[in-house]
Amino acid sequence: MKLLIKDLRTNILKLLSTNMNEEDSNTIADYLVWAEMSGNKTQGITKLSGSNPLQSIKPDYPIKIEKETKVSALLDGGKNPAIVVADKAVEIASKKAKEIGIAIVGTHNIFSSNGAQSYYVEKLARQDLIGIMVSRSPGSMAPFNSIDPLFGTNPIGFAFPTNKDPIIFDAATSAITFYGLIVAKAHGDKLPDGIAIDHEGNPTNDPAIAMDGAINPFGNSYKAAGLSMLVELLSGPLVNGAYLDCKTFDKEWGSIIIAIDPNILTDINSFKDKCTDFVKQIKNSRTRTNEEIYFPNDKATNSYNTSLKSGYVEVDDLIYNQIFNKD
Amino acid sequence: MKLLIKDLRTNILKLLSTNMNEEDSNTIADYLVWAEMSGNKTQGITKLSGSNPLQSIKPDYPIKIEKETKVSALLDGGKNPAIVVADKAVEIASKKAKEIGIAIVGTHNIFSSNGAQSYYVEKLARQDLIGIMVSRSPGSMAPFNSIDPLFGTNPIGFAFPTNKDPIIFDAATSAITFYGLIVAKAHGDKLPDGIAIDHEGNPTNDPAIAMDGAINPFGNSYKAAGLSMLVELLSGPLVNGAYLDCKTFDKEWGSIIIAIDPNILTDINSFKDKCTDFVKQIKNSRTRTNEEIYFPNDKATNSYNTSLKSGYVEVDDLIYNQIFNKD
Repeated sequence: MKLLIKDLRTNILKLLSTNMNEEDSNTIADYLVWAEMSGNKTQGITKLSGSNPLQSIKPDYPIKIEKETKVSALLDGGKNPAIVVADKAVEIASKKAKEIGIAIVGTHNIFSSNGAQSYYVEKLARQDLIGIMVSRSPGSMAPFNSIDPLFGTNPIGFAFPTNKDPIIFDAATSAITFYGLIVAKAHGDKLPDGIAIDHEGNPTNDPAIAMDGAINPFGNSYKAAGLSMLVELLSGPLVNGAYLDCKTFDKEWGSIIIAIDPNILTDINSFKDKCTDFVKQIKNSRTRTNEEIYFPNDKATNSYNTSLKSGYVEVDDLIYNQIFNKD
Repeated sequence: MKLLIKDLRTNILKLLSTNMNEEDSNTIADYLVWAEMSGNKTQGITKLSGSNPLQSIKPDYPIKIEKETKVSALLDGGKNPAIVVADKAVEIASKKAKEIGIAIVGTHNIFSSNGAQSYYVEKLARQDLIGIMVSRSPGSMAPFNSIDPLFGTNPIGFAFPTNKDPIIFDAATSAITFYGLIVAKAHGDKLPDGIAIDHEGNPTNDPAIAMDGAINPFGNSYKAAGLSMLVELLSGPLVNGAYLDCKTFDKEWGSIIIAIDPNILTDINSFKDKCTDFVKQIKNSRTRTNEEIYFPNDKATNSYNTSLKSGYVEVDDLIYNQIFNKD
């Protein structure tokens, strides 16, 4: 169904505020509305449904700054929703990067996934900073020639400012996300070849069997496994979090955000001009059949901008009614 | 042939010192001997042969610090050999990271390739720092659905300290390096499927045709293209260097090094213990046929350690005689 953006936001806030302070409710509502507007339904209001909906999370204690320097902070999330902790991390990274030029902020002991890395790095790019973010998740990918699910699906996100919308990238280092397995299983779909293995390491096209086995790195490449290792090391051991772990669910999530002020190396205006030209040059380059060139985040950005302009957002009827029209 | 490591080094120094000061000669000799000891022949003494050997480079002016803050530096290489400029960048990044916790150092206007990213990031890891390095090179890879060689082969390297040898990773974001095309062409080898396209965007297995066309991202994946875009943006526009450019050879190379002191987020000793355990856990995980698990850099590290222990290094007779026994 089509809803006014502001009505969706009001309804989400009403639901969240029963169990959450105003600030955190707003933070999560912003994220969920952004995800719906961007057409990223797996990151939207679906997070308010299911067995562990966001509105029912009971944190252990407020977010604590566990360690801090001029260029860094480590946040102990106190089992607050990962979205709230990541948003706080972005705020701190931005403040420090603007003051000193570069900052690194880590989070651990957070509840579940912080969602799309693109959301957080875009915030930094909109402030004329370069944002880079990596997060580990429960082990589900087998790296190198191991057949054990040692690494998470471990996304890498980054954003660069331009004179228009930022250049944004966000992708799992695995061939498919764990949520992708869930969807394939629910729909009875087979997985494409090369995506996953069973518990004994044999290739499988069955998502249910893959859940008991492991996902391959993207492109089935040791290079993707290596980059996933970078994510695992940065957002596990470096943030006092779990690593290579698919057992201790509540300890498993962690992230690192790096914010860079381009002014420390170059001039921000010339940098933004060049990043704008960068997009233009790629879009104007040749293709095989004269089709348009899309950047990885174009679809999401276009969906968001269209929604913003119209004032309306399209949500899934089934999910929406499940959450908001229970009676 | 087998040479004493120290004899190889002496011979390299003798050759370099005809045209280069002692410090730069030593820096380059260290790199080349390391590459030969690591079995990375494409990065070794072959760089002293050919039409643009290292010993014949004539820089425009000494390396200049173009911009500097507590957390950053941008080096104008003055067309000095990229190896010398990258080594200087590592030194500065290390010093600043030890002082303030994190540092970012860029280089541009350098002569040709700085070689293996692993060499530089390992130096940082041996000093208990996390090292991350990316470098752009002349455009040779077609990203997304473009068929133009817009991005370089754009390697990403990183290293983490452990209680033994560091965890090291270094790989091009392209399916093959440009040097890989040269070798395949010289040997008359066909390229595997999915590696490259011709000038019109049709798949090709011919390395010579690929040179006029473009290399694919690794795994033929938009994710690898996206990560290559990160490298291109960081080591091009951010360092006042060229980008999306395969024409202005002398301006084309650039790099970014990030050094992080783990102590700003966690405790270095516990971090190194965890990184050591990380390697052990992966090595002890299951494989399909009970084979040993290799990390991407194990072969190079083992070759280096074996050479160091014996005092000898194996070099290619043909290349060696071409360089050192011309008469």
